[in-house]
Amino acid sequence: MGKLGILAVVTVAVTAATAQTFQRLGACPDLGCVLPPDQSDFLPGQYFDLRLEVHAPVNGSEAFNNGEPDENFTVTITKEGGESKSIAEFFDVAEPELEKWDFHWYEDLFAKDAHAPSVVNVASKIYRKLAIYEPGNYVVTLKYYDGQTTTANWVVRPLATQKKAKNVILFIGDGMTTNMITAARLLGHKSINGKYQSLLQMDQFPVVGHQMTHSIDSFITDSANSASALYTGHKSTVNAMGVYVDSSADFFDDPKVETIVELLKRTWDSAWGAVSTAAISDATPIALTGHSRSRYAYGSLIDQGLNSVTNYSWTNQGGPDVWFGGGAEQFYPNSDSYEGKDYYEAFAKAGYEISLNKTSLLELGNSSRALGIFCQSHFPVWLDRNVFTENLESFKNDPLGSENPALDLPGLKEMTLKAIDILHTRGGDKGFFLMSEGASIDKQMHALDYDRALGDLLELDDTVRATINHLKEIGELENTLVLVTADHGHGFDVFGGVDTKYLSAQENDRDKRRAVGIYEQAGLSQYTVPVEGVSYGTGPNFPVNWDPRYSLAAGLSANPDHRENYRVHKKPRKVVSNTPGFSKNDLFVDSKDSPDGFVINGTLPVSESAGVHSLTDVAVFAMGPCQETFGGVYGNIDIFYKVANCLGLARPDNKPPAGPGSGCKKHQGQ
Amino acid sequence: MGKLGILAVVTVAVTAATAQTFQRLGACPDLGCVLPPDQSDFLPGQYFDLRLEVHAPVNGSEAFNNGEPDENFTVTITKEGGESKSIAEFFDVAEPELEKWDFHWYEDLFAKDAHAPSVVNVASKIYRKLAIYEPGNYVVTLKYYDGQTTTANWVVRPLATQKKAKNVILFIGDGMTTNMITAARLLGHKSINGKYQSLLQMDQFPVVGHQMTHSIDSFITDSANSASALYTGHKSTVNAMGVYVDSSADFFDDPKVETIVELLKRTWDSAWGAVSTAAISDATPIALTGHSRSRYAYGSLIDQGLNSVTNYSWTNQGGPDVWFGGGAEQFYPNSDSYEGKDYYEAFAKAGYEISLNKTSLLELGNSSRALGIFCQSHFPVWLDRNVFTENLESFKNDPLGSENPALDLPGLKEMTLKAIDILHTRGGDKGFFLMSEGASIDKQMHALDYDRALGDLLELDDTVRATINHLKEIGELENTLVLVTADHGHGFDVFGGVDTKYLSAQENDRDKRRAVGIYEQAGLSQYTVPVEGVSYGTGPNFPVNWDPRYSLAAGLSANPDHRENYRVHKKPRKVVSNTPGFSKNDLFVDSKDSPDGFVINGTLPVSESAGVHSLTDVAVFAMGPCQETFGGVYGNIDIFYKVANCLGLARPDNKPPAGPGSGCKKHQGQ
Repeated sequence: MGKLGILAVVTVAVTAATAQTFQRLGACPDLGCVLPPDQSDFLPGQYFDLRLEVHAPVNGSEAFNNGEPDENFTVTITKEGGESKSIAEFFDVAEPELEKWDFHWYEDLFAKDAHAPSVVNVASKIYRKLAIYEPGNYVVTLKYYDGQTTTANWVVRPLATQKKAKNVILFIGDGMTTNMITAARLLGHKSINGKYQSLLQMDQFPVVGHQMTHSIDSFITDSANSASALYTGHKSTVNAMGVYVDSSADFFDDPKVETIVELLKRTWDSAWGAVSTAAISDATPIALTGHSRSRYAYGSLIDQGLNSVTNYSWTNQGGPDVWFGGGAEQFYPNSDSYEGKDYYEAFAKAGYEISLNKTSLLELGNSSRALGIFCQSHFPVWLDRNVFTENLESFKNDPLGSENPALDLPGLKEMTLKAIDILHTRGGDKGFFLMSEGASIDKQMHALDYDRALGDLLELDDTVRATINHLKEIGELENTLVLVTADHGHGFDVFGGVDTKYLSAQENDRDKRRAVGIYEQAGLSQYTVPVEGVSYGTGPNFPVNWDPRYSLAAGLSANPDHRENYRVHKKPRKVVSNTPGFSKNDLFVDSKDSPDGFVINGTLPVSESAGVHSLTDVAVFAMGPCQETFGGVYGNIDIFYKVANCLGLARPDNKPPAGPGSGCKKHQGQ
Repeated sequence: MGKLGILAVVTVAVTAATAQTFQRLGACPDLGCVLPPDQSDFLPGQYFDLRLEVHAPVNGSEAFNNGEPDENFTVTITKEGGESKSIAEFFDVAEPELEKWDFHWYEDLFAKDAHAPSVVNVASKIYRKLAIYEPGNYVVTLKYYDGQTTTANWVVRPLATQKKAKNVILFIGDGMTTNMITAARLLGHKSINGKYQSLLQMDQFPVVGHQMTHSIDSFITDSANSASALYTGHKSTVNAMGVYVDSSADFFDDPKVETIVELLKRTWDSAWGAVSTAAISDATPIALTGHSRSRYAYGSLIDQGLNSVTNYSWTNQGGPDVWFGGGAEQFYPNSDSYEGKDYYEAFAKAGYEISLNKTSLLELGNSSRALGIFCQSHFPVWLDRNVFTENLESFKNDPLGSENPALDLPGLKEMTLKAIDILHTRGGDKGFFLMSEGASIDKQMHALDYDRALGDLLELDDTVRATINHLKEIGELENTLVLVTADHGHGFDVFGGVDTKYLSAQENDRDKRRAVGIYEQAGLSQYTVPVEGVSYGTGPNFPVNWDPRYSLAAGLSANPDHRENYRVHKKPRKVVSNTPGFSKNDLFVDSKDSPDGFVINGTLPVSESAGVHSLTDVAVFAMGPCQETFGGVYGNIDIFYKVANCLGLARPDNKPPAGPGSGCKKHQGQ
C-alpha cells in the first residue's frame, strides 16, 4: 500500500461521509456567539482573538427576524468586582469593521436525506491579538436583538512566572489507550507465573493521571483539536487547531489562541522542536504552530510552521529548531506544497540543515536548525521497517517526490535522540520543548491492524526508554519534565487467545469462532516464546515471535465490516473495498483480507473504511520536575496549564517580556 | 428476568463451553510442580500451604516413564546466602504423607473434538500452614525423575510492622474500566463547552495508579482469582480464591494462602466487613475468606465466611462484623445452602443481628455484628431499583426463599454507610477494613446492557461520595485509606452518538448504521438535558434523561451475536436465545431484543450468551494515609502489599503475635 492508500484510510476516518448530530455552530447554542465561549480558561498574558457573531436563520426550526441579523450588537467585558467596559476600551484596541456572510447546515439526517438545508445570515466582528494579564474571573456579555444576551464566563488562571523545569519532552502516543498499553506489554514483555520479568518504560513512571479528551462541541475528538487543547489550553472543534471555529467560509480567519511554543519563544526564547512518524504537516505535530479550522490545509500549515502566522499580527515562534518526520509532499514543489513552492529551499534559505534519510540524520551537527523529512506521507510502521521489511519496497514515498521507495528511514528513537541533542545545544541555558509522536498507533488502529499499532506503541516506549537514558548521559534528566500521554483513544481491547490453526481448519464462520479461548483458555502470551529459526533482531522489549499459533483475540467496538483470522498481517491491512455494482460509499469486506477468517459486520456507517476514535480518558505518565502535579483526573487543556506553570509562562503583568517574536518582526531566532 | 435468568448469564460467562488453550496444570509447565510457584511473593509471617506434585503423563505428547510418577521426589528451601534445608526441617513440621491421583486434560481443540484426552498420574505431598518470617529471597527446589528439577524463586517482602492507616475502605467496581468511568461521567455530569460542571467523586481523588489484572496461568482473569490477588498478594487460576490450584479432584484441598482479613484479625483484632450488590457468596466478597479452587461452591464458601477454614488448622478470621448483600439462597435452608442448613439461624446463634430489608437495615444498632441479606441472587440493578422500578415485581427473589419479589431493597450507599457505622463502633481504636463492591457493572457488561452497567457505576461513585462525607462527619477521614479500583475489565468504549429516531426509521440493517454519528457528529450528551415531564428523582450525579433521541453508540470488542438500537433497555437485556432446531450451544440473536436495531454477529464462540472479561489494566484511585504509594503501574497483588504495609501487617520475626485466631481456637472474636 503506497502513499495514497495510507492517506485514504486516514482521510476517510476523520471526514465522516454520514452524520448523526448536526449543529448550527459548535460552542454557540444561542443566536449570539462569543468565541472564546463560556467556560474558557486563559493563561495570563496569552494572546487570543475574540469573535462575535449574531445569527439570523432564514428557514428551518430556528427561523428568526426574517433572516436579518442584528448588526448593532454590543459587547462588554467585566472583571469580577470591577466595572463593565467595551472590548475596545478594556483592551485598548480599535473597533473592528462589521463582517457579513451566510452559511447553511442540516438540522438532522432526515433534512440531509431530503436535501433541505437551513440557511443562516450572520453579522460579526473580530478583535484580534488581545491578552488578559490579571488572573481572575471575567464575564463577556453580548447583547443583540433588543434584549437577547449571550454571556461567556472566562477564567484567567493564576499561574507561576518562574521556571521549575528547564526542558519539557512531551511524548504523544496518538490514539494510545491504557488498553493498548496493556496489550503491548503482553506482546513485548515476558512474564512467569503472572509476574512480568521486564516492564514498559512508561510502566516505570512514578506518576499516572487521566485526561479527558472530548471536543468543545462533541464528546469525541480528532487529533487536531485534541493536540490543540494540549498545546493551547483551549478546546476546539474536530479538525481545528489553534483557533475556535467560526461560521465564515475562510479557513484562516477564525479566532486564534496562542500555543505553548509561541509562548515559550517569546517568554524565554527557548528552543523547540517536533518529531513524528506521521507527516510533519499532520495534526499532532503541526498544531504546535498551526492556526486553522482545517487540518487538511497541509501546505499552508507548513508555511505557518516556518514563517508563523502571516495574515495577521501574531507571535512569531521563530520556526522550529528541529522538525523530523514524513510528509515530503508539502516540501518538494508540487500541488500539495503551499503555492507550489519548494519548502526544502525555503527552509535552507532560513538556515536549516536538511536531511532526507537516516544516514544524513545521524551526521547532522547539533548547532544548526534542522529539517529532516524522510518520506512522503506517514512513515511505514515499525513492523514494516523492522520485521516485514520487504513491504518497504512497495511504497512510492521518496522524500524528493519520485516514485521510488524511501528505504533509508530512521525510527522514532533515532529522530528523537538527535532532536534532543540539537535542542539541548541550541536551547542552552534557555532550555527546550520537544514533542515526539508515535503517530501510527492511531493510524493502524483506524486500519484495524492491531499488530502494526502495537508495534508502534512498543517503538514509542522504546524511544521513551532511550530518551531517559540519553538525558541521564547528557546530565539533563533532573532538569527535564518527561510526559507520555495520548490525544484520544480507540475502543480496543484483548479478550482472549486464539488457536489460529484450529480457526483456519474450520469450514464455516460460526465454527471458526470456537477457536477463541476466553478466561483460563486465553492462555499465556506466545509472542515472548522463542521459536527456532525466527529472529527479527529487534532486541529486548519487542516480541520474539509475531505469528504464533496461539495469538491474541482482539478488536474494537467501532468497526467497518471486516474479517478476522487474528493473525499478524504480513502486508498492511485493508479491510473493506469497493464492490462492483455498489456505490463507493457502500463498502463490503475485502475478499483478500484474512481469507481464512470469519466475517464480522460493522457498527459504523457502511461508507466508513476504517475504525474511529473513542471516548475514553487516556493516561498521562509523568516524571521529572512538577511530576506531582500530573496525578489525578483532569481535562486535556489542564496539561497545557500544568506545563505552562512548570515552565513559568504566565505573564500576570501588563508588559509582555522583551524577546523574539514579541512584535511583528519575522524569522527572529534564526 | 428472575434469579435463574441472572445466574445463567453469569455462569455461562465464566465457564467457557469451548476453549482454545488447554494446560496440563496452570503454573506448572514442567512435570514437577511447586505451589506457590516460581516468582511468588509473600508477606512476612503470612500463612501458606506448600503443594508438590510430580506428573507422569500416560499418553499424549508428554507421555513419560510409562505413566509412573516418581514417588521419591525431594524438596529443599534455601534462603539467599544460607544453607539448603528440607521443608520439614526449615519449617519445623512433620513430613506429610504421599498422595496419589490421576486426572485428564485435552492438549488442544483438535484433541477435544476427537475425544482424545491425555491422562496424567500424580504423586504429591502438601505441607500445611507454613510461614516465613524473615524478609529475603528464597529458592525452593524440587528434584524428581533422577535429575529433573523445578525451582521456585520466592520473595518475602520487607514491609512495615506499624500502622499508618487505622481504617481501609476498598471499593471494587467489578469489571470497571477507565473507558466505563469516562462514559458514566458523560451520562451523569453536565458539561458546557467541553468543561464539566461537576465531576465523579473518583475523578477528585489525588492519586491514580494502574493495576495489571492477569491470572497466574492466563492473561485474562475472572473475579475470584483477581479478588484473591487483591486480598492475598498471590495470583491464582480462573475460578479459584485463597489457594493455588492443584491437579487433585478435591475443591477444598488446594494449597492455601492467608487473606488480608485473616491477617488483620490475628494481627490487630480489627473489625472487618463486606458489602456487595452481588450475592455475598459471589467471588468478590467471598474471596476475603474463601479458600477453594471453585468459586461455585457457594454454600461451603458461606460456611468458611462464618466459621473460617474447618478442614485444616488455619487462621480464624472471627466471622465478618458486617456482611450486607444478596444471595439468600445460601442462607435459607435449601439445596443451595451448605448441607441444606439454615444459615440465618447459624449467624443468629453466633450473635449476629439479621436484616432482610432496607427498613430493618436502617434500624440496626451499631454495636452488634450484622448480617443483611436482602434478596436471592444478585441485587436488581440501580436502574431497575430507581428508574424502571416496575421491573422489580418480576423478580422472584424474596430473601426468605418464597417466589415473591424483594421490594424493600437498600442501595449500595445505604449498605456501605451502615457498614461503616458498625465497623467504626466495633473496631474502635483497632480500626476496620471494609470492602464495598459495585458488582453489576460487570454483570451488566456481560449482558451487553451498557446503561444498566453504567447506572451501577454511577451508584458506586455516589457511594464513594457519601462515604467520604460520612467519614468526615464521624472524624475518620484522616485515618482512613480509601481506594477505588476494579478487578478486571471488559472491552467497552463509546465511539459516537446515535440518532435513534433515524435508526428506527430505516428499513434495512446497513441503512440503520448511517444513524451512527462519529467525531463532530457524535454531538453532545443529551442525558444531562432536562426534558419536560421526565424526572426520576435520582438527584444530581445521575442522568436526567435515560432515553434521549440522540444516544451513545457504544459496544464491546467481545460479543455474542446481538442486535443494537442503542436505546436504553426498559427490561433487563437478553441478547441471544436458543433457537428451535439448533443445539443449546448454538445461540442466535434473540428476536425480542432491540427489534428495531441492526444485527452484529459476534466474535465469541456461538455457545457464549454473554460478553467476556478483557485484558486492560484498570485504574486505582487512592486518598488518605499511604495514598502516595498507589501512583504508577503495578500488579494487582501489589495492592495487597501496599495495603498490608499501610496496615502494618508484616510479622518479620519468629513469633506470631498473640490475638484471636492465632491458634486453632474457633469463633474467637465473636
